[in-house]
Amino acid sequence: MTANDKVLIFDTTLRDGEQAPGFSMDHDQKLRMARALSELGVDIIEAGFPAASKGDFRAVNDIARQTSGTTICGLARAVEGDIRATAEAVAPAAKKRIHTFIATSPIHREHKLNMDKATVLARAVEAVRMARSFVDDVEFSAEDALRTEPDFLIEVFSAVIEAGARTINIPDTVGYATPEDIYRLFSDLRLKVKGAENVVLSAHCHDDLGLAVANSLAAVRAGARQVECAMNGIGERAGNCATEEIIMALKTRADSYALGTDINTRKLYGVSKLLSGLTGHAVPRNKAIVGENAFAHESGIHQDGILKNVETYEIMKPEDIGVPKSQLVLGKHSGRHAFAERARALGHDLSPDQIDEAFTAFKTLADRKKVITNSDIEGLILGKEMGTQGPWHLKTLQVSTGSGDGALHMAAVHLVHDTGRAVREASMGNGPLDAAFKAIKRATKASAALADFSVRSIGAGADAQGWSDVRLVHDDVSVHGSGVDTDIVHAGAKAYLDALNRLIREAKPDPKTTAPASSARALSA
Amino acid sequence: MTANDKVLIFDTTLRDGEQAPGFSMDHDQKLRMARALSELGVDIIEAGFPAASKGDFRAVNDIARQTSGTTICGLARAVEGDIRATAEAVAPAAKKRIHTFIATSPIHREHKLNMDKATVLARAVEAVRMARSFVDDVEFSAEDALRTEPDFLIEVFSAVIEAGARTINIPDTVGYATPEDIYRLFSDLRLKVKGAENVVLSAHCHDDLGLAVANSLAAVRAGARQVECAMNGIGERAGNCATEEIIMALKTRADSYALGTDINTRKLYGVSKLLSGLTGHAVPRNKAIVGENAFAHESGIHQDGILKNVETYEIMKPEDIGVPKSQLVLGKHSGRHAFAERARALGHDLSPDQIDEAFTAFKTLADRKKVITNSDIEGLILGKEMGTQGPWHLKTLQVSTGSGDGALHMAAVHLVHDTGRAVREASMGNGPLDAAFKAIKRATKASAALADFSVRSIGAGADAQGWSDVRLVHDDVSVHGSGVDTDIVHAGAKAYLDALNRLIREAKPDPKTTAPASSARALSA
Repeated sequence: MTANDKVLIFDTTLRDGEQAPGFSMDHDQKLRMARALSELGVDIIEAGFPAASKGDFRAVNDIARQTSGTTICGLARAVEGDIRATAEAVAPAAKKRIHTFIATSPIHREHKLNMDKATVLARAVEAVRMARSFVDDVEFSAEDALRTEPDFLIEVFSAVIEAGARTINIPDTVGYATPEDIYRLFSDLRLKVKGAENVVLSAHCHDDLGLAVANSLAAVRAGARQVECAMNGIGERAGNCATEEIIMALKTRADSYALGTDINTRKLYGVSKLLSGLTGHAVPRNKAIVGENAFAHESGIHQDGILKNVETYEIMKPEDIGVPKSQLVLGKHSGRHAFAERARALGHDLSPDQIDEAFTAFKTLADRKKVITNSDIEGLILGKEMGTQGPWHLKTLQVSTGSGDGALHMAAVHLVHDTGRAVREASMGNGPLDAAFKAIKRATKASAALADFSVRSIGAGADAQGWSDVRLVHDDVSVHGSGVDTDIVHAGAKAYLDALNRLIREAKPDPKTTAPASSARALSA
Repeated sequence: MTANDKVLIFDTTLRDGEQAPGFSMDHDQKLRMARALSELGVDIIEAGFPAASKGDFRAVNDIARQTSGTTICGLARAVEGDIRATAEAVAPAAKKRIHTFIATSPIHREHKLNMDKATVLARAVEAVRMARSFVDDVEFSAEDALRTEPDFLIEVFSAVIEAGARTINIPDTVGYATPEDIYRLFSDLRLKVKGAENVVLSAHCHDDLGLAVANSLAAVRAGARQVECAMNGIGERAGNCATEEIIMALKTRADSYALGTDINTRKLYGVSKLLSGLTGHAVPRNKAIVGENAFAHESGIHQDGILKNVETYEIMKPEDIGVPKSQLVLGKHSGRHAFAERARALGHDLSPDQIDEAFTAFKTLADRKKVITNSDIEGLILGKEMGTQGPWHLKTLQVSTGSGDGALHMAAVHLVHDTGRAVREASMGNGPLDAAFKAIKRATKASAALADFSVRSIGAGADAQGWSDVRLVHDDVSVHGSGVDTDIVHAGAKAYLDALNRLIREAKPDPKTTAPASSARALSA
């Protein structure tokens, strides 16, 4: 099915990653991420769980429509409604996959499903058969496989392969396994499952004990040829195997694994940054591969070694993962071409229109700041892309604040709606930002609860800009907005309005791509 | 030497961790961290590199003075000056260790040391002998061991054991190894190194490929009985094996490893939070063991399972690592006892005086905020501990800011010095915070460059407080300050002043504990 010296990268950033608390993305953000993953060269994008909600259906469906070259996959429980919805959602894709699953471990059978072995087995086979009636490419997962009786696993896998599954996924759902457990189980399954030689075995490891990458590599050593992973290691609980780590481990230690991937590793840094910008979760400084310190060497001893020979301490080159080589700053005299080049190096493939718009913002910023850093450019591009779609636009913000017993914090805003209507409102608050949020809320009459808020400096020095992230929640929908400004209060207000606009837009989705009522209803069961 | 069913935890948060860019701590912060590590129950604290600077010497020396029960260790290159300084620094400790090292790999011998094998070997033996003349407990590391010719490693290790080393550390300095590499090497060394059966073999793994925990476990399987690790996985580049992960992997999978540690795992959460507060680096939400999502289950499927039986998705209990069980909020009617209890549950063992002070601040906050969350309490305690030592104190801050072409941002501050002197100053800036920073700089006449800045909300909702982190750099000294306030500009100003105060205090260390001029001079070579 696939060459035996290649590991398929199945990226689940948009499914297992996106469903983790605090990492939800809105429709546009999901489409943007899917484009980036496709350009990175992952083999399969798990785009969502179509039966979970109308929003999930619409996202998988639009990603299937827009993406060519990459297989688009949707997750489905082993029930008819889920499989039909998923089939419909992935239908527009040139390459499509249905990923269906059922829990097989005793604890899940007993406490979650209330089914005996025979029923689980029958459901699994039925689900795979039904999925095959829609698509050729069907993946089956035995949820909590690592805690399932090996004999039962063999029975289930043999049966679903017979029923037409082409990929068999063996997830460590609770992140409990050691590399030795994984190696043993995969080796055993490869020997004993009927038809195993004709399908791809897949690993899906969670990082609860810090072992997700090692476990995925152990699976690969035992014959797995697909790894399920998520950018920046996001996902349920401690997250999934990090896409960038498994890829660079296979590449850096090709001497040991002798297996390749089809990934353009030079895009890893940009995709990681993009995800971080879209979700508002900064990559920690000490994160492997993509963290700010990954290629930084502090101690005098190390610096000395690095100066004498870079290999004394570096096993990868920053260029390999696309860390922009040039930290050369741009300034007000830099041209459109230099700007576009840098944007590309930072992982942003912009259309000519987008370049025009971002370049205009760049020129304005260059009038206020002497040096424009890579972080500033990222701020401009992501800020532009994320903050200007309306319906509400922030025209003016004015704030006054002080400390001490008698101090009052107040903010006034002037907002303009897409319809042309202008609103001015003021409010007091616990602080200047709270006052600004309240003034915006009054002006827009929107309701939403603040779930999370942060500002961090991008770039260093006195004229560093503030990058703000705001997460709002309303009616079980959680959205993230960003704003960039040299004024942190202003950055915060922009981020708040960005999030609020997203909530408003999500509430009225584009009528062209709404989930058909029939499937949506079937799924909410 | 040590029972064969126990793994020694050698924590290097204060050495390898602290030396990573952006993670430096000042003197008080290091002492606070050492106390917490000692209470956690780690076996050895690597407290610093005494020869690196006077500040490092003083920190190791004071930690050696204050800590009982835990072995205090200092790092020393295999040169006389380093070893003498380290011996002097750790001298006050009841249990003390000197950790000396030299690089053994061809690339390091050739490009960094410019030494042949015989010279490296002679230096190593000489260093261990000298260290043994000061202390009984000597550890030797072969830097870049994983890229060293195995025969040479065996020769060096056999010789240093003969010379008196009791612990042999085999670091994967560049983070290149796979678990299989590590297992093979450790097994080989255990068989072939003369005297290996009488010493403790130790692993020191870096996370460049995401394999630090798995590699440490592979070493343990092959007979290592010490793991070098750092809280939150901090350290050079992608950091070290995370202390909390290796401990919980050994504990959770005791069925597989059959090895224990002496760690009080219920302190892990508090120590992780403390480190994050001290360095200004928030633990990422998807971090294993201590991340906010580690025990959170989002998807409907998982929630359903959890409600039916907690073991369907949880392999550890939040209580095991000390996540405060009670998310019950405190309010203005809560008493001193309830407050102290909660503080202890959050990992803060405060003196009665400290409780009094924090409790007063708690009452003030409770007047402004209806509900006080765990995050608020952490903010109070860390804020109190970190922001009130002077010499400068912020009395009043007033800010006015706006957007648009004509907008001016201004801030005025009223500061009071420990000497009683009051200063009032105003400044304009690129934003309200920049204006506040500039006004403080004018008032204090201090010089420092802003390296990094952030504010994040602690707790959720409109009256969430802002926790601000500021990193300042001056004359190669990097300090981190924090501030907490419901007003983010005020929080930022407090953090800036906290960092500035630290810079001023670091410049004038307590005369009682200064490094002796002799050793300090020897070390700067």
